[in-house]
Amino acid sequence: MHLSGGRLREFAQGCDVLGGGGGGPAGDSLPLALHAVDLNGPVEVVDLAELPEDGLVMPCAFLGAPAIGAERIGTCRESVAIRRHVEHHFGKPVVAMLCTEIGGYNGPAAAALASHAGLPLLDGDGMGRAFPGVDQVAMQLAGVTPGPSVLADEHDRVVTVHAEDGAWLERLARTVVTGFGDRGVSSEYVMTAQQARADGAVVLGSVRKALRIGELLAQPGSVVRRVRALAGEFDGRVVAEGRISAVLPATGPDAEVLATNRRTPAMLEGIGPDRGRTLRLEVGHEYLAVIEDGEPLATMPDIITLFDTYTGQPVSAERLRYGLRVVVLALPCPPLWRTEDGLALVGPGAFGLDLPYRPLEVS
Amino acid sequence: MHLSGGRLREFAQGCDVLGGGGGGPAGDSLPLALHAVDLNGPVEVVDLAELPEDGLVMPCAFLGAPAIGAERIGTCRESVAIRRHVEHHFGKPVVAMLCTEIGGYNGPAAAALASHAGLPLLDGDGMGRAFPGVDQVAMQLAGVTPGPSVLADEHDRVVTVHAEDGAWLERLARTVVTGFGDRGVSSEYVMTAQQARADGAVVLGSVRKALRIGELLAQPGSVVRRVRALAGEFDGRVVAEGRISAVLPATGPDAEVLATNRRTPAMLEGIGPDRGRTLRLEVGHEYLAVIEDGEPLATMPDIITLFDTYTGQPVSAERLRYGLRVVVLALPCPPLWRTEDGLALVGPGAFGLDLPYRPLEVS
Repeated sequence: MHLSGGRLREFAQGCDVLGGGGGGPAGDSLPLALHAVDLNGPVEVVDLAELPEDGLVMPCAFLGAPAIGAERIGTCRESVAIRRHVEHHFGKPVVAMLCTEIGGYNGPAAAALASHAGLPLLDGDGMGRAFPGVDQVAMQLAGVTPGPSVLADEHDRVVTVHAEDGAWLERLARTVVTGFGDRGVSSEYVMTAQQARADGAVVLGSVRKALRIGELLAQPGSVVRRVRALAGEFDGRVVAEGRISAVLPATGPDAEVLATNRRTPAMLEGIGPDRGRTLRLEVGHEYLAVIEDGEPLATMPDIITLFDTYTGQPVSAERLRYGLRVVVLALPCPPLWRTEDGLALVGPGAFGLDLPYRPLEVS
Repeated sequence: MHLSGGRLREFAQGCDVLGGGGGGPAGDSLPLALHAVDLNGPVEVVDLAELPEDGLVMPCAFLGAPAIGAERIGTCRESVAIRRHVEHHFGKPVVAMLCTEIGGYNGPAAAALASHAGLPLLDGDGMGRAFPGVDQVAMQLAGVTPGPSVLADEHDRVVTVHAEDGAWLERLARTVVTGFGDRGVSSEYVMTAQQARADGAVVLGSVRKALRIGELLAQPGSVVRRVRALAGEFDGRVVAEGRISAVLPATGPDAEVLATNRRTPAMLEGIGPDRGRTLRLEVGHEYLAVIEDGEPLATMPDIITLFDTYTGQPVSAERLRYGLRVVVLALPCPPLWRTEDGLALVGPGAFGLDLPYRPLEVS
């Protein structure tokens, strides 16, 4: 299968849905992917089983402030230098690009990065959605070594970070990206195809899933109806239709000084068939939980996505505003996040929520 | 020749003199060098001519805030990881440590770093004094490629920076050091011994020179007399004896917001044989110029060092205070800095001074 033109647009739409409100807008990186494909031809999507077992799989994602990604049009040619340094460091060829984070901006960005690096894109990703942490990836659960972190900007400047400790790796990588001007591509958890084939080392099928979501949303019909079709196909649930009746002041540890810890709860008043219901949304970088009468209806790591009832577009967490009319969709996260280790890394507690995790289907 | 114990103390004293008020106090890194020698035995000082021509010479220096170096006792074991990464990158063995900056803190620090890395210390350095810029080294004039920049902290975290552009290399290296906690060792301008032997690629003899300065200052006699002996042996000049009568408010571009650009002029009133004279000192990270009646008596890149008349200790630029009694010594800089290219890199203009450079001897 190949990605180009209309398929890329549908793919981007699916990436926004899988972002669960986070990861930045896929619409901002879509032009980069379309441009890359114009230059280099369609991006080939490959299955893990097709790759030579000793070849390297190279995960890539942008780090930095999403606002910079929106304002500064980049090239996505960072992957050229990253590939060169990864091959030099590991002494093996890279055979495929892996999207670190399928949700949001980094989905279409991975297609553009693959195209410029002359690589196929693996049908999979590291998260199956969007998460804020560099270590919140399937590779971490599978015990793949995260370092070195290879970072590049679009002017062929490359920085490699070696640290045993994941927290330091992330700290130094983010510092470097700040030095780049708050936008850079980062590659961690490079592994051989053989390592990637270990159970749960990669979330498989994410690219095709995003594409299929985009296809479903491109069908005719009302927004609610299309979202219901999507829920039906992916074992999800339409939680409610409603109107944002309040976006509350930020709370959480150091909420005032540290944007990364900020949580801005919001209230949703049911409309239409849901009139009379009141839901509370916990909102961080992503939508963290939907709560009704003190009971969580859906929580991290399941995917909570809000669609604007008028435009049908997913509403990112940072653009949530008073008065918006939305349909709230919840989709199950990949099964690996529902294990004990998975929940320790990305469960409600990892986002400061004092809530138990119950799979969406049993809430 | 070997460095240990008493010799290391004299060496540190000489490094402070060659710092010209900058480079941070050598007394802060001396304990690290003494400790390294206790553990590993004396540090061998070698001549460039002794090294195998294909072996690598590895320059090292601490980057970051000098105050952190004073407060956080380090290990100087950063060089172990740097050596490993340099050898991996270049695919050749490192055969000697080169002190990037003999002036101040980085002089004794280089001895400690050499000791832990199991390397001899080359009798030379990159500056022949102290300068604030990463590119203000002999290697830059000689056309040695600066990158990659290999940086390490004392916990075996290593970051390598690749950038064609020296300004970006320095920007990213400093950003990384900030990430380390404002203290880290940096290696740039790695070269083969053959490259180092090119005319002016290294300032030769700096280690022995610092040692000899320390020896002279350890002689009995008044401070003024010992400083005169030093001036006599190294073609320098005692500019004046005096008392700091004013330290003026900071000036210079962005002086208020950017500490790196700050200049704090000071006034010196002559005492003893110099009674009646008034001198102006231009002070940045180092002493930049001594001016009398509008005429420069000494300017960058010649070395201007102030000795406390009571203690005999060099007074660093940041510790200059109203009321101090000092002897002002000027020493000629290494000849390579007096060339046209040298002056473009480290002449008065490079420090924002609108003064011509005249060699000390003809002022």
